[in-house]
Amino acid sequence: MQNVNWQRTDLVDEAEEVVLHQTKEQKDKLEQASGVQIEDRHVGRVKITDVRVDATGEKGIGKKEGRYITLSIPTLTVDDQDGFQQMEKVLLQNFQQLHETITWSKDAKILIIGLGNRTITPDAIGPYLIDELHSLDEIDDKFVMYAPGVTGQTGYETGEFVAALAERLKPTLIIVVDALATRASERLCKTIQLTDTGIHPGSGVGNQRQEISAQTLGIPVTAIGIPTVVDAPVLIAGAVEMMLRSITTRIAERNKPSAKLSLTSWQPTSEQELDMTPIKPIFGEWVTWSKEERQQLFEETLASAHTQLMVTPKEADYWTERYAKLIASMLMTWAQDLE
Amino acid sequence: MQNVNWQRTDLVDEAEEVVLHQTKEQKDKLEQASGVQIEDRHVGRVKITDVRVDATGEKGIGKKEGRYITLSIPTLTVDDQDGFQQMEKVLLQNFQQLHETITWSKDAKILIIGLGNRTITPDAIGPYLIDELHSLDEIDDKFVMYAPGVTGQTGYETGEFVAALAERLKPTLIIVVDALATRASERLCKTIQLTDTGIHPGSGVGNQRQEISAQTLGIPVTAIGIPTVVDAPVLIAGAVEMMLRSITTRIAERNKPSAKLSLTSWQPTSEQELDMTPIKPIFGEWVTWSKEERQQLFEETLASAHTQLMVTPKEADYWTERYAKLIASMLMTWAQDLE
Amino acid sequence: MQNVNWQRTDLVDEAEEVVLHQTKEQKDKLEQASGVQIEDRHVGRVKITDVRVDATGEKGIGKKEGRYITLSIPTLTVDDQDGFQQMEKVLLQNFQQLHETITWSKDAKILIIGLGNRTITPDAIGPYLIDELHSLDEIDDKFVMYAPGVTGQTGYETGEFVAALAERLKPTLIIVVDALATRASERLCKTIQLTDTGIHPGSGVGNQRQEISAQTLGIPVTAIGIPTVVDAPVLIAGAVEMMLRSITTRIAERNKPSAKLSLTSWQPTSEQELDMTPIKPIFGEWVTWSKEERQQLFEETLASAHTQLMVTPKEADYWTERYAKLIASMLMTWAQDLE
Amino acid sequence: MQNVNWQRTDLVDEAEEVVLHQTKEQKDKLEQASGVQIEDRHVGRVKITDVRVDATGEKGIGKKEGRYITLSIPTLTVDDQDGFQQMEKVLLQNFQQLHETITWSKDAKILIIGLGNRTITPDAIGPYLIDELHSLDEIDDKFVMYAPGVTGQTGYETGEFVAALAERLKPTLIIVVDALATRASERLCKTIQLTDTGIHPGSGVGNQRQEISAQTLGIPVTAIGIPTVVDAPVLIAGAVEMMLRSITTRIAERNKPSAKLSLTSWQPTSEQELDMTPIKPIFGEWVTWSKEERQQLFEETLASAHTQLMVTPKEADYWTERYAKLIASMLMTWAQDLE
Repeated sequence: MQNVNWQRTDLVDEAEEVVLHQTKEQKDKLEQASGVQIEDRHVGRVKITDVRVDATGEKGIGKKEGRYITLSIPTLTVDDQDGFQQMEKVLLQNFQQLHETITWSKDAKILIIGLGNRTITPDAIGPYLIDELHSLDEIDDKFVMYAPGVTGQTGYETGEFVAALAERLKPTLIIVVDALATRASERLCKTIQLTDTGIHPGSGVGNQRQEISAQTLGIPVTAIGIPTVVDAPVLIAGAVEMMLRSITTRIAERNKPSAKLSLTSWQPTSEQELDMTPIKPIFGEWVTWSKEERQQLFEETLASAHTQLMVTPKEADYWTERYAKLIASMLMTWAQDLE
Repeated sequence: MQNVNWQRTDLVDEAEEVVLHQTKEQKDKLEQASGVQIEDRHVGRVKITDVRVDATGEKGIGKKEGRYITLSIPTLTVDDQDGFQQMEKVLLQNFQQLHETITWSKDAKILIIGLGNRTITPDAIGPYLIDELHSLDEIDDKFVMYAPGVTGQTGYETGEFVAALAERLKPTLIIVVDALATRASERLCKTIQLTDTGIHPGSGVGNQRQEISAQTLGIPVTAIGIPTVVDAPVLIAGAVEMMLRSITTRIAERNKPSAKLSLTSWQPTSEQELDMTPIKPIFGEWVTWSKEERQQLFEETLASAHTQLMVTPKEADYWTERYAKLIASMLMTWAQDLE
Repeated sequence: MQNVNWQRTDLVDEAEEVVLHQTKEQKDKLEQASGVQIEDRHVGRVKITDVRVDATGEKGIGKKEGRYITLSIPTLTVDDQDGFQQMEKVLLQNFQQLHETITWSKDAKILIIGLGNRTITPDAIGPYLIDELHSLDEIDDKFVMYAPGVTGQTGYETGEFVAALAERLKPTLIIVVDALATRASERLCKTIQLTDTGIHPGSGVGNQRQEISAQTLGIPVTAIGIPTVVDAPVLIAGAVEMMLRSITTRIAERNKPSAKLSLTSWQPTSEQELDMTPIKPIFGEWVTWSKEERQQLFEETLASAHTQLMVTPKEADYWTERYAKLIASMLMTWAQDLE
Repeated sequence: MQNVNWQRTDLVDEAEEVVLHQTKEQKDKLEQASGVQIEDRHVGRVKITDVRVDATGEKGIGKKEGRYITLSIPTLTVDDQDGFQQMEKVLLQNFQQLHETITWSKDAKILIIGLGNRTITPDAIGPYLIDELHSLDEIDDKFVMYAPGVTGQTGYETGEFVAALAERLKPTLIIVVDALATRASERLCKTIQLTDTGIHPGSGVGNQRQEISAQTLGIPVTAIGIPTVVDAPVLIAGAVEMMLRSITTRIAERNKPSAKLSLTSWQPTSEQELDMTPIKPIFGEWVTWSKEERQQLFEETLASAHTQLMVTPKEADYWTERYAKLIASMLMTWAQDLE
């Protein structure tokens, strides 16, 4: 039977150290110490986080050396035409820039791999992208495209599959597109991660067989990932965290003069540290635990249930198709400009 | 765009009063006071909860007068052939018994309606059932079968659709099959609810237009429902509850002599009341809140996010197909025996 | 098991008398005698045949009283963007004109029925149209849309299904979309027929139960049909006819002075009568038979085989999706203009 | 856009010389002269034609050296459970026998490739087989399975795809499953061809790039093929041939005393030579042409139409799914017995 391994790869900026660069001093310190360079910028509604990790940084934060570009529109909704257009435009710019040093010979090939399990909607962005490209009247001569399915279905490691094709086809570039798991439910389907480090299942735990990267294949590998699921314990710990922070913030604001004017809402607060002492009487010592400690507690609790749960947006089918179309359209525009 | 309304109907035994009949005295009291009769029995691995609600009970617990039979195998897994066979056998017995008073004329028709949205896997049990029946070589002459889709797709209330067909076809029985939302994640895909009260979207909130029932149609309506999703706040509150109860139980057991021998696990404890005082220092006043109060807190917290989340088993596609096949097979056997 | 009944309806201008109005005199005679009015016109590449049949004509040619508008682009190919755009534009004009006398109340409903069997590609235009409309972000408030499947699947006559919905919904207009069989393989997927006479399965043989028409339902019914299949004996007889005519024409042209200059090809010749005497030595008495007599011979011959065959374009899937999109787009534009 | 190349391979016994071995003398002569050994046998309802071609034979009949086993049930219908069971049983026996010399190491892999275009039903047997194998609860450890799609979709030769995987995976055996074109419409979906010569697109025309065979890959390749389509000119010429033969036979029988008793039908007559002189007056010189000459005439005639046609059984979707299941089931049984 087929299985899903949502932890194939993670978003880089969920690495603890990257997430916590909330103040300028922290960021500077992180960059100096760890060989990680972070640049935040905005283009229209799209927030871009551009992270460069060097060899030192790889050891420090456990993320492969290379470049990670995360595009995000926190207010994106499923029928937000303008948002998707902005996202595609900014993705194209960054995609072009990431590959501008490649020289294209006349008969260069680009191997496009849509990863994931077609029968599980939130995991189907990769296969849907390949379907979308297949359905076009004219496909680019350079493109060679497969949606290999998952190891549990095919009986073969996906990394081996890509290696087999790469060896014979000798493409100039490999593009892998995949759904990702995220640790932050508010990012679900609102973020695209672009990286030149490939796909490292199990986050660099060293399972070289499954890795799809320039290091293992000798060919540049660009990965495009969209977070579409959260694991249940992650969701729960995140919601508890969000709830505790919101209450703390509210209590803090009550004492400010502005409180009388404000319509305080349950908006996710920034990730900066908060003194949660005021809510200890209600929520106990627990508030002083880290989010990760609470998550571990929920993992243990839920492990006793017989069914593994996943959390996904209610309109997962729409998001999945939208992103498949967005990426297909971006790739077609990009390829036409190469010639 | 299509939308999903997972709250179309609920499991009867999640009505507060029914859930809490944990001791014999409570059960007796509930039955006496509220016009609700509850019978628990086991057939093999299947736990059967047979609930009869009369007019008084309807007012008391807000569930329609009628019968609700809930079949459950708490240890069911997705490749548990034996479990599914037992489930089908017990479903057939109860289905037969529920309809044994119906007289079948020679040209009687049975209208089978598979509710739900085909494009959202955990909502697709109804449409998949109809597909499954269509794919059979021989279908029963009595069966008339449709998967109408959801109102957001068709532009027409599903209740109206069924009423239109019922008026012209004049079937002897209407069977509606649907995916349900549950309040207990441990029930997901492990429970079948059978009821002669039909489908009451919004749990009897009085939206008569959508109701599919003997009362509105003048024809017996049997509903078969499978819980396949949990709403995110429900999951979170449930997990918090489970965590708090487990810790309390552990602490209580620590003082028993048996503790040294036991391999205490995070198993869901029974729903009986627990004195949570011992964990107050860690979790604060919060432990004395009800599960519902905590759930409301999470609903408010999550409402600020732009994306609505659903929680579903990782193998939702398998469960959905299995149940579609199970119900198709049960219906075919049942219909053959009618002749 | 599901079955296909490709003879649900025919193209009107394949009625013997209509086909043969090749000369002006013939046309005049046909119109006078039979209560059939025919108007041919062109808009860009689209050939429009506009046929009006009155009560006398209905008896004469066995086609229901009413209007039949046939749009045709003989040179249409599957990736002919310009052709499809012209087709859609002309279809919209004729569709608007056909319905301009209808008064639309504020809460008027339009029932759109996509007929056909989704699992058989060339029969799936109706179901695909409904899918296409469902996938749109905004659907028109007036639209109520179903793809009921075929009787062999659902256990219920499609005509009854539509009648049931029409009775309860009381729509202002019913639109049925269906794949058709044609007698001329060169028309396959290059023709749209629009008629206000509804759907008459078995071509008016009097099976009132299946008929979907203003006469049976008391509501205007507009049918949009696309020929996507030819029966095998029809194809064979047509090919034999085409071959015999081509050879006859070639032989005739050999004696003209122009023959030396011409690149005579196997182009389908016009349907005017030809003296086939010159080819009798090669093809025998057979050449004097009518196309219909030859077709009957092939029907008898092929009837001995155990498998029924259908003939369809190699790219049937593409044509089917294109027409589904074309009709969806036309209907959306038309509906927006109503308001 | 994707295209279909139905002429990927042909049934061996449609090679002219093989088809015509109708009398014992002819057969002996064919075998002697051409290095082709033919053995006909029956198992139950299944007719088996077992053809061995050696190097001499390869030159003589233009079919690769090797073995071709054709299983056929001329009376098979789509809901003929008994027929399909017999077919599967006999296929298994022959499949086992064909591979009994292979030695299976402990970690041997078998590469199963389902060829064809998933979106064109009669071409989808290969992809459906892979789906069927994926949906099984337990797949065999030895199986590695892909449905690569067609070159027009993927941008890569299917032969190259298989070569790439074979090089890296180093399987002990490659099994390719494909839909075939046939020259005889009465064979459609009633025949399975098994061969150890692999897939030779264009029937050995020398396009080595696309060939999937032991010769090109250095690994045994077994091909399982099911004829599901006929080209239109082939159908027409076949039907004309069948018609001419039937009439000739009838006329011949009219003079026999038995004629008064017989219910002469339009059954396909055997392929032995017939003296068609009696029907010359009706059908002319044409009757003396060969079937191939007539077919060429129809090819030229139909080439003028803009749409390429294919002929396929009306229930192509059923046949396709049945054969996918039959082959999946046979492969599972076979693999289990290997251990």
